[in-house]
Amino acid sequence: MTSTDTEDAAFDIPQVYKHHAFACYTQRPPGHPRGSCGALGAQPLWDRLGKSLEAKGLSEIGFTAAGCLGFCNAGPLMVVYPEGIWYRPTTPEDIDEIVDCHFRQGKRVDRLVMVLTRR
Amino acid sequence: MTSTDTEDAAFDIPQVYKHHAFACYTQRPPGHPRGSCGALGAQPLWDRLGKSLEAKGLSEIGFTAAGCLGFCNAGPLMVVYPEGIWYRPTTPEDIDEIVDCHFRQGKRVDRLVMVLTRR
Repeated sequence: MTSTDTEDAAFDIPQVYKHHAFACYTQRPPGHPRGSCGALGAQPLWDRLGKSLEAKGLSEIGFTAAGCLGFCNAGPLMVVYPEGIWYRPTTPEDIDEIVDCHFRQGKRVDRLVMVLTRR
Repeated sequence: MTSTDTEDAAFDIPQVYKHHAFACYTQRPPGHPRGSCGALGAQPLWDRLGKSLEAKGLSEIGFTAAGCLGFCNAGPLMVVYPEGIWYRPTTPEDIDEIVDCHFRQGKRVDRLVMVLTRR
């Protein structure tokens, strides 16, 4: 067995990113019963987030497009690890605050946090 | 300002998942200069992972399809948070070991770990 207890050893491996954000790009058609982050206006927000990280040279922040994160009525939804913080931004200003507060200063933006419970 | 220092407060919010895995589903055509996880055989591995988690009732493990994770020649690539462990499984047995060791027992599978450095 070549395993290592993650509780003891997780920090032996250097982290690729300081924060790694995953944003839901799922787009379901209008009227779909589950809805989707795309139908709730996610795409231009994620575009702004990606461009902002690049423009500010925040290469220590990972940003990855994701499929459905499983909470379709809570979107637009993104999750930031390693903290496991779920955000629901709805305006360009929300995106700017996540970038400036969370990604640059390491301060959680409480007003945009979604507290979710898995089904 | 409604922010909170993540270093102090990250654990105030309950975590949705014990582990959350993101697997790259990018598929570029054969011969593409960047290659892709899909071209390296990712799809059937991720299918096995998703089905295994469901079959074993591991609802505390999140599994999300992801776009390009940015290390295309290191695939098939997945990352597990909050640990920030990157894995490169290539066989069905590799997937089974990640499920049984990492997701069920919390033990890292060292032989499948990729140590990556961002560019």
